[in-house]
Amino acid sequence: MKFKLILLFLLLNICFVAFSQDKQSEKSQKQDITVTEKGLIKVSIMYPYAEGKTFNMEYYETKHMPMVAGFLGSNLVKYTIEKGLSSGIPNQPLPFMAIGTFYIKSLSEYQAAIAPNRDAIRADFVNYTNVSPVILVSEVIK
Amino acid sequence: MKFKLILLFLLLNICFVAFSQDKQSEKSQKQDITVTEKGLIKVSIMYPYAEGKTFNMEYYETKHMPMVAGFLGSNLVKYTIEKGLSSGIPNQPLPFMAIGTFYIKSLSEYQAAIAPNRDAIRADFVNYTNVSPVILVSEVIK
Repeated sequence: MKFKLILLFLLLNICFVAFSQDKQSEKSQKQDITVTEKGLIKVSIMYPYAEGKTFNMEYYETKHMPMVAGFLGSNLVKYTIEKGLSSGIPNQPLPFMAIGTFYIKSLSEYQAAIAPNRDAIRADFVNYTNVSPVILVSEVIK
Repeated sequence: MKFKLILLFLLLNICFVAFSQDKQSEKSQKQDITVTEKGLIKVSIMYPYAEGKTFNMEYYETKHMPMVAGFLGSNLVKYTIEKGLSSGIPNQPLPFMAIGTFYIKSLSEYQAAIAPNRDAIRADFVNYTNVSPVILVSEVIK
């Protein structure tokens, strides 16, 4: 009888420990997600819209961006791609056809990684666009 | 004796069910995070830099953006704020001083929510900037 009770107690204990550890790992994961973006540096490569300008989103998404991302190593937290749809102001032209954004930890590391590959990156531009991008370096505030 | 065994079995069962549900909710949460951004609409309010133009980031972050976000209800998935630091191209001026971005599910719902509040939003501009924003509506591709 006593043995059964001890066994019951031990098994429940193991179970609760496992359960609470699981809760904790979930909590730390949530914190990671909330914290990682704030304070990061964004490098946004913005392709302005103008008449006669073209942009091949499929090539950009499947070839160009993965190539550049591959140069950045662990400094790169994530990258995003967006496709311009319209201006948010009526009767205004579309400001940008596309924007590619690298979220990085260190700007100097980014520059050091890009410098030896700049020619390869620029040579690839003609494969998806005929417009020169505007590049914004910014800091994530929120 | 039999009663104790049944009790032990039941308690362990409850414990494992709770544990597996927790695992599942963690899994679905992870999927949400990965999936939610792709396909969302971004409305980016971009404040161009020019000489003599000013931007009060503290007011923007603590007053203006929370006010506008409050108009959007459950259509708003999240909003972000970034502060322009420099151009990514040497010897080029900073393209934007700041960008505020709303990640929304529906553009028409966004427009319907903003329309009756447009005057209040515009009247608040003078409290943090003297520049007219460029607004880009885009779709998250990746």
